[in-house]
Amino acid sequence: MHQDMKKTINVGVCGLGTVGAGTVQLLQNNMALIQQRTGVTIRVTRAATIDAYQHLDIDFKDLAVTDSVDDVLNDPDIDVIVELIGGDGLAKKIILEAFDKGKSVVTANKALIAKHSQEIFRSAFESSGMFGFEASVGGGIPIIRSIRDGFSGDRIESISGIMNGTANYILSSMSNDGTEFNDALKMAQEKGYAEADPTFDIEGIDTAHKVVILMELAFNAFFDFDQLYTEGITKIEPADIQLARQFGYAIKLIGQAHNSEKGIEGRVHPALVSLNNMLASVQGAFNAISVTGNFVGNTLSYGAGAGSHPTASAVAGDIIEISRRLTNLGGEATPPLSASFDRLEKVDLIPMEETESRFFLRFNTKNPDEGLAIVGEELNRKDIKIGEQQILEPGLNGEKSVAILIPAVSESKMQTALNHLNGLDALSGSIGYIRIFE
Amino acid sequence: MHQDMKKTINVGVCGLGTVGAGTVQLLQNNMALIQQRTGVTIRVTRAATIDAYQHLDIDFKDLAVTDSVDDVLNDPDIDVIVELIGGDGLAKKIILEAFDKGKSVVTANKALIAKHSQEIFRSAFESSGMFGFEASVGGGIPIIRSIRDGFSGDRIESISGIMNGTANYILSSMSNDGTEFNDALKMAQEKGYAEADPTFDIEGIDTAHKVVILMELAFNAFFDFDQLYTEGITKIEPADIQLARQFGYAIKLIGQAHNSEKGIEGRVHPALVSLNNMLASVQGAFNAISVTGNFVGNTLSYGAGAGSHPTASAVAGDIIEISRRLTNLGGEATPPLSASFDRLEKVDLIPMEETESRFFLRFNTKNPDEGLAIVGEELNRKDIKIGEQQILEPGLNGEKSVAILIPAVSESKMQTALNHLNGLDALSGSIGYIRIFE
Repeated sequence: MHQDMKKTINVGVCGLGTVGAGTVQLLQNNMALIQQRTGVTIRVTRAATIDAYQHLDIDFKDLAVTDSVDDVLNDPDIDVIVELIGGDGLAKKIILEAFDKGKSVVTANKALIAKHSQEIFRSAFESSGMFGFEASVGGGIPIIRSIRDGFSGDRIESISGIMNGTANYILSSMSNDGTEFNDALKMAQEKGYAEADPTFDIEGIDTAHKVVILMELAFNAFFDFDQLYTEGITKIEPADIQLARQFGYAIKLIGQAHNSEKGIEGRVHPALVSLNNMLASVQGAFNAISVTGNFVGNTLSYGAGAGSHPTASAVAGDIIEISRRLTNLGGEATPPLSASFDRLEKVDLIPMEETESRFFLRFNTKNPDEGLAIVGEELNRKDIKIGEQQILEPGLNGEKSVAILIPAVSESKMQTALNHLNGLDALSGSIGYIRIFE
Repeated sequence: MHQDMKKTINVGVCGLGTVGAGTVQLLQNNMALIQQRTGVTIRVTRAATIDAYQHLDIDFKDLAVTDSVDDVLNDPDIDVIVELIGGDGLAKKIILEAFDKGKSVVTANKALIAKHSQEIFRSAFESSGMFGFEASVGGGIPIIRSIRDGFSGDRIESISGIMNGTANYILSSMSNDGTEFNDALKMAQEKGYAEADPTFDIEGIDTAHKVVILMELAFNAFFDFDQLYTEGITKIEPADIQLARQFGYAIKLIGQAHNSEKGIEGRVHPALVSLNNMLASVQGAFNAISVTGNFVGNTLSYGAGAGSHPTASAVAGDIIEISRRLTNLGGEATPPLSASFDRLEKVDLIPMEETESRFFLRFNTKNPDEGLAIVGEELNRKDIKIGEQQILEPGLNGEKSVAILIPAVSESKMQTALNHLNGLDALSGSIGYIRIFE
């Protein structure tokens, strides 16, 4: 099924803050690619903001900017309204009115959805418009899609993870530098990772908003946000972090929900996480969300949890999915390979010889110093630099294994050198090589 | 948009091996949940297998089993054909014929897609049927959906990861136990993680199949499987692994593809991966795939890369998505919360007091032994067990921080005990507590 109907989708953006500006940038910069994938032209034709916008790195040629959201809502040519104002005042009015007019809505507004989910989703249900909110949880991580479409056959048993980049940034600094909470918060504010009023982030409220949204999706029910136990990270001391590490744990702000025979549990609080758990290695402003299903087992999705571009990626994904559906009624919205078959060509790869890699070389020798000298000289003759070296103690049968790291070099150059080295008597057996993953 | 048309989707499964049996089990065990989510009844009505099937843990009441795939293909009541035979002989015939008849197809067959992608996708394109192949890469990890729908607005710059559970299991054993390759392979075969003929897994061919599929999706072009540089793990020695660790690296079989100004690179070979990279901590038969986009930045998806139930989860996700579309022509296929709004109820959470957690307690004291004795006695009186203890050296201002781990206990019991402990003179300040994440 691949007939296309409408070919252009007009988007109106309410709010030109970091995410709003990022969304317009994405749709402008990646438009050729999006057209190849979807066959649809997606244009941001109107944006509403009450802040200065002239400095934004955006092409304003075909984009009318207004200070009234009503100008966007009342434009009959706009198909999709993107709400990026936040909060549950004006934002709520925009979303409900847009649905009422039969327009589709995309939002990143977790507070609004978590607190008013029944009202918002009823309004979406009663509208002919569609609703995208992937950006409300986990920034660019497509966790809403994974749960809704990927795990649609699974009974979800639990959801847990690090869902607030500010809190994780603070806990990471406290852990890495032994900083006190207040100093780590101040640093996060200076670097732009925490807002002037950080309450929602450090008290776990933002995480709780996200947990409620994921619970509603995963457990197929509505929940009362106020029933979620929510505790922040303000009482954590450096000594807690050091001691936890002695036990083999990191301290993370964890949002979690469990669906068991007893009922459904949802809570947000700091928690010790085993260093063997991948969540323990999530550093800085990143997010990671683990979902366990009765068939899929344990999964984890990791990525930037906030920020202009990652969040814009999620907003754009929703706009594109809605655009595909609006332009392809009666058929499959997304073709199996994303772009329609007739928009795909066959492309040649770069031959391996022309690629570059860093290398790890290993050889066995009775005399490591001599071996290193010989190999070093040969590599030097082939114009290949050498990096760090290590000798494995103790050796075996009077021989030692020696390893050298090689900075980035072309495959053909390295293979020529290896062929040459493998003919040398000073080394026992051939040289083992492994490329280094970047 | 929420009108439903057809209410039942009939599925025919070709191949009742581990994944085929798992898929039928999933659709039977989770059917009530899938009906709530989709409003659709999905029934496996026919299955073809040439092996014994009577022992399978499946309800055969409404399921006709045959030894001929033609019986499945020629059944006019079947909407979706699930091809789980593998290889590129009979499997290819099934898929092409199914598309030719206008049926939708779901498969886990990476070898077939990688080697014959243009033929298969042309056939899907020319058919009125839809095509799902999420299970072909990364088992239960919804990586196809993430790239196709989640990152649909991004220019994908690179894809890399651990995509073969057998090879990762072998490398993990070699790394953890110092085992030689051949012994690790034998162990993997005994435990069922490697097949009798492990060539595809250990020579990187299976990983290369998956890389090609992800490249075609991410870079929106077709590629020639034979152009991919492919090198396996058979030459890795325990000494390589030890030496790599001294440098701060693990050795993993990495499949990777890069899209740069120079062109497109794709390759599979063992590589050193920095221990700071999350890919280095992927152990055993798990998979993890990292995708970098020009807006979303770096992401990682982790989960079981193979096995009956995880792969069945991916197959079921595709069947469900196709079923939603087949039953809801003209509208949004997947409602925003997965289940239609009118199939969702409001549900109360279990109150926090009734939940259970493991706890980490920390207090400051001039005399750790006395402090531990007092706290231990108080907890014992409240019937709370205590676990491992640690003292932080050196102390501060003549005081030391002491930590105790508490096995699972109810929140109400722990809070009562904490209230009591906070009144004790022997401890300076209050007791800090952090729940332990499971």
